[in-house]
Amino acid sequence: MTDHDRIKPRTLKGFRDFLPEAMLRREWLIDTARAVYRSYGFAPIDTPALEYSEILLGKGGDESDKQLYRFEDRGGRDIAMRFDLTVPLARFIAQHVGVVGTPFKRYHVGPVWRAENPQRGRYREFMQCDFDTIGTESTYADVETILVIHDLFIAFGFERFTVRINNRKVLNGMLETLGIADRSAAVLRAIDKLPKIGVDGVVDELEESAGVDRGESMKILDFAQISGSNAQVLAALEAAVGSSPTGRSGVAELAAVVAGTMAAGMPQERLVLDVSIARGLDYYTGTVVETFLTDLPEIGSCCSGGRYDDLASVYTNHRLPGIGASVGVDRLLAAMDELEAGASRTGAADVLVAFFDAERGNDYVALGGQLRNAGFSVEVYPEAKKLRNQFKYAERRGHRLIVIVGPDEWAADTAQIRDLATGESREVERERLVAACRELLLPFE
Amino acid sequence: MTDHDRIKPRTLKGFRDFLPEAMLRREWLIDTARAVYRSYGFAPIDTPALEYSEILLGKGGDESDKQLYRFEDRGGRDIAMRFDLTVPLARFIAQHVGVVGTPFKRYHVGPVWRAENPQRGRYREFMQCDFDTIGTESTYADVETILVIHDLFIAFGFERFTVRINNRKVLNGMLETLGIADRSAAVLRAIDKLPKIGVDGVVDELEESAGVDRGESMKILDFAQISGSNAQVLAALEAAVGSSPTGRSGVAELAAVVAGTMAAGMPQERLVLDVSIARGLDYYTGTVVETFLTDLPEIGSCCSGGRYDDLASVYTNHRLPGIGASVGVDRLLAAMDELEAGASRTGAADVLVAFFDAERGNDYVALGGQLRNAGFSVEVYPEAKKLRNQFKYAERRGHRLIVIVGPDEWAADTAQIRDLATGESREVERERLVAACRELLLPFE
Repeated sequence: MTDHDRIKPRTLKGFRDFLPEAMLRREWLIDTARAVYRSYGFAPIDTPALEYSEILLGKGGDESDKQLYRFEDRGGRDIAMRFDLTVPLARFIAQHVGVVGTPFKRYHVGPVWRAENPQRGRYREFMQCDFDTIGTESTYADVETILVIHDLFIAFGFERFTVRINNRKVLNGMLETLGIADRSAAVLRAIDKLPKIGVDGVVDELEESAGVDRGESMKILDFAQISGSNAQVLAALEAAVGSSPTGRSGVAELAAVVAGTMAAGMPQERLVLDVSIARGLDYYTGTVVETFLTDLPEIGSCCSGGRYDDLASVYTNHRLPGIGASVGVDRLLAAMDELEAGASRTGAADVLVAFFDAERGNDYVALGGQLRNAGFSVEVYPEAKKLRNQFKYAERRGHRLIVIVGPDEWAADTAQIRDLATGESREVERERLVAACRELLLPFE
Repeated sequence: MTDHDRIKPRTLKGFRDFLPEAMLRREWLIDTARAVYRSYGFAPIDTPALEYSEILLGKGGDESDKQLYRFEDRGGRDIAMRFDLTVPLARFIAQHVGVVGTPFKRYHVGPVWRAENPQRGRYREFMQCDFDTIGTESTYADVETILVIHDLFIAFGFERFTVRINNRKVLNGMLETLGIADRSAAVLRAIDKLPKIGVDGVVDELEESAGVDRGESMKILDFAQISGSNAQVLAALEAAVGSSPTGRSGVAELAAVVAGTMAAGMPQERLVLDVSIARGLDYYTGTVVETFLTDLPEIGSCCSGGRYDDLASVYTNHRLPGIGASVGVDRLLAAMDELEAGASRTGAADVLVAFFDAERGNDYVALGGQLRNAGFSVEVYPEAKKLRNQFKYAERRGHRLIVIVGPDEWAADTAQIRDLATGESREVERERLVAACRELLLPFE
């Protein structure tokens, strides 16, 4: 192969390689999420990366359709790569509900693809990590969803975070009392701009885009600025929705979620009723939830979701209400880097057995097996290189101990152990090697 | 949505949904493999599903090129989905070797896509689960590769299996002694047909396709039928390669792998020198390995790999020799079903808390939290349905215990526990609930 024939090794724009350090953190985050999901009885599923395009098209709005990786396969089929895990779930449950039954509690972790313009923190391929409870309208499923989110963040190593909830029916109910329930989308858009354009701006926009008069606008703005303790917010919302059945039902559901999560022992300060939480997606119909890290609010919600009336009506006449949420894997990994939270792992084995004496390779292999059988992860350097090089390798990779057995140690039945954190070395009798490594690696046992 | 507008929920030909039962087994298999890889100091990486087509084309032969899911993205780039994890590894290491250094030991688990004709046990999307050691020619890396494979199969729950190894240099060396080293591919093809076409057929084919005369053919056939204990095979191979330096080096490497794995305590009967192991891929240059289940030889090799001289010469002038192998995830899962090996897991939580009394929802949620804090996985049924329905749900899902607290039990501060395996129920005081569940779930603690 000449230089001229070589192909430049590169990844596509918006795509990433994960090197060991980053990948270990991702594996840890996902393993942790799976353990929490399972502790509540959620079970995993998987679906194909590729689907018929008709399955995916039109499910996430025009924007999603434009971002599809869509093409024709060799059989002339119009196919595309999944852009989220919710549309495949809808297709899955429509297809398999007869087998899996309801309530169906599933988690699903996998990559999704969106051909959007890459920007900081946005990629064309990223992991999603969703959980959903399908086939029940009970608010206890909403309660459990909040508890799962709470337990996830605790398991990820965070203590300072808030799970912020709202209910779509509350705003709709309030708009019902004003007789403008049909304009909720325009109203939401206007309210969202409050921080940018101020009260007068919103009033103007509400009039122009939704035909809402000034008096109604002020009521909407009062509503949008409701805040306080959860009890205060509930009281204010109850007043705002008046006798609207939709609104009253929304307030009752919020109250039920507050009461249920408190009954389960979730610290009250971590659950916040927040009327500004709306969630962009149209299909949410009840509870909506976002989760913010207190020390990094600017990165946005790190776990979001909500309740939907009917997940799979496009594919089946079986009505399937449910609730679910999605962990923001990339955001949480960025946050852990920033806050130095979560497990710090180098990916290196606990112990590197140095390869000192070229004639003794099999003895080093056997030594490695002995330490591995004792429960440590152990790497045996593959060849007799200068010790200096092997030390450098261990430092770069992040091993915790190096075990060195040279001719003198073989003769004396001993071993040197070097602790890379302290730089200290000690010589031990070889029959005490496992015990000595245990003392150094697990000092508190 | 009318029936007329509905889209039929279906997957593409050759693609699969994984329902919870199958997915739990897959997760278990992969978690187990990762734990073994890590115990030897391998660290995970990930690469994108999509690559520039030029990265992937021509790397796996014409067949792979034809099976590529290849298309043009919206930016006019010629892109394709990866068909294995080895070509992306080659691109990865060429790109990042300056950062990750060598020896580089990585594992990589992820889906790959091949548009081949689906047939029994073959899919267009499947998981690969590879490990490789890059940047060393030491046979101790070969030894370690065999030990990892051995530990993988033990961890998967198999005891009756053989790791069968050969070395590409041995056949090449033997052909050198006959002066026909340039015809090894044709010779391999002919030998492969021995079981089908017999000795005379092979002799004819060797003459026609490789211009090998009858005397040479008989030597090749004698070679191809060498078998016996590992010591006998080594002796026969040594004789067959004569003074060929290539052949002698191949035999020495095989001997080193046998000695190294024995030194590490691998049971000798599980390592078999087998001259019929060739591995289809041209890039293997030394050790080649396949792994067979003794009770299911017909499913073929469940873990295969080998040594290569230079992994990434297409992308870099940095020479990168190495060795690796790949776990056959689908085959092993099929074998576990067949042999009823591996962990049997239903995916259900240990305990289902029945929702009996509609007014007591928060108390059931609290009870669930209490049991979960004790370390069990716990599902709380989301609404007050007939107990009969909840029992049916638990039976279908496979919970082990149902905890029932109805009005009488609330009044008496007790709980009913029903063991679904035995069908027995017992009433316990509620403060003993955790202890009683522990006795039933962990009787041997």
